Amino acid sequence: MIFRLALGLEYDGSGFCGWQRQDHAPSVQEALEKALSRVADEPVTVTCAGRTDTGVHATEQVVHFETAAYRPEHAWVLGANSNLPGGVAVRWARPVDDTFHARFGATSRSYRYIWCCGRARPALLRGRVAWSKYPLDASLMAKAAGALLGEHDFSAFRAVACQAKHPVRTVRALTVQAAGPFIYLDITANAFLHHMVRNIAGTLSLIGRQERPVAWTAELLAGRDRTVAGATAPAEGLYLVGVEYPEVHGLPLQGWRPRFA
Amino acid sequence: MIFRLALGLEYDGSGFCGWQRQDHAPSVQEALEKALSRVADEPVTVTCAGRTDTGVHATEQVVHFETAAYRPEHAWVLGANSNLPGGVAVRWARPVDDTFHARFGATSRSYRYIWCCGRARPALLRGRVAWSKYPLDASLMAKAAGALLGEHDFSAFRAVACQAKHPVRTVRALTVQAAGPFIYLDITANAFLHHMVRNIAGTLSLIGRQERPVAWTAELLAGRDRTVAGATAPAEGLYLVGVEYPEVHGLPLQGWRPRFA
Repeated sequence: MIFRLALGLEYDGSGFCGWQRQDHAPSVQEALEKALSRVADEPVTVTCAGRTDTGVHATEQVVHFETAAYRPEHAWVLGANSNLPGGVAVRWARPVDDTFHARFGATSRSYRYIWCCGRARPALLRGRVAWSKYPLDASLMAKAAGALLGEHDFSAFRAVACQAKHPVRTVRALTVQAAGPFIYLDITANAFLHHMVRNIAGTLSLIGRQERPVAWTAELLAGRDRTVAGATAPAEGLYLVGVEYPEVHGLPLQGWRPRFA
Repeated sequence: MIFRLALGLEYDGSGFCGWQRQDHAPSVQEALEKALSRVADEPVTVTCAGRTDTGVHATEQVVHFETAAYRPEHAWVLGANSNLPGGVAVRWARPVDDTFHARFGATSRSYRYIWCCGRARPALLRGRVAWSKYPLDASLMAKAAGALLGEHDFSAFRAVACQAKHPVRTVRALTVQAAGPFIYLDITANAFLHHMVRNIAGTLSLIGRQERPVAWTAELLAGRDRTVAGATAPAEGLYLVGVEYPEVHGLPLQGWRPRFA
């Protein structure tokens, strides 16, 4: 008998070359597959909802895998965690039927991007937030973000290396808020192009610094030219904070949005 | 001419053997003195408000030092930061007169202790919070904390190695609050005995787990016996979040209390 399981996973991206297995660098995927293979006592291969880049964090990445090994849910969680490095932890495990697919079954993904503004660099939160030496005006950024809501061709915010079949994505929610020295950008879309959140963050930060006007996002969207938009914002400010699936799968989704101070 | 300066300092304690210089391990004091000596171009020795232990963090440690080197305030901040490791940053610098003393002039210190409760260990916040596998009842902990307010002999919460002249301290504020999986303990006192906050945290966590009654704190205080109170809670949950001085010194104090999610 083959069992199919879904897992919720939290990780600190700073110790990894990103989600995906690489030959010469530690990846989250490799760490998780090693740990699960020990619990299952057979090789396990996992599929994730969103492949994060080097340095990008997750409060709730979702993965699925198949195995011939039966284990109770808590044995997957505790067993995996005792075999994972400190920067990765399985939060929950749930059996799913074979209609569930972590990547193709996800109806949306949510990311949070965090800047810490100030003349002195962050120490306690280094690697956990992007540092902006310049103040960022969150209300200008929020206005500019409005143009990105809805279904658009996001070619202006797409990495050259992006392998997606087409550049159209639907942004369902996009907000920018300030709290003390921190600026939080929250974005939910059906799916994302490669570097799309970081390219949007880089563009909005130039608007927040008043180096570009609020109308710039709409112009960039219309122009569909990656070379004129803002630079890709640093990975360390980015968190995958949630993946949504049809309720029928009954996943105990609990992704949280990091908030500092 | 000799200049006296006060600095506000933030650090991630996880990479250090604590504040104080040690022969064979990296300390925050050593890192700061090296960085300031480079900026001053002469050896600098610093005095801090509260010597934190291995693994304990600070959002605002205050130090002072003397130097014959004149530098503008921002040169101390930026110069020190470019010579400090990533886990330490100077937040501000301010000239003070020679009546200022970081340790003896402080009128109070404030600490925050943070637990993350849940069956799975924290990954993103490892080293930044103490993990409790068991739920903690913050309202029981808050009630029990009430007995510690005011001036008391804190011998029951004092490390054996403590070098203070007497065990009497005045706790001015002490609150315990829950937010999601996190429990925040905030304590302000005129000064603290060695391990006093972590010993109070360890004791309150047993009350929060309902292994001890709310009245236990009052009994422990009266008994003055360290050997019967709770174990010292882990360093990684502890933050020095502020030091207060008379307003006459005009320090730009800005300590923040970390809050997650």
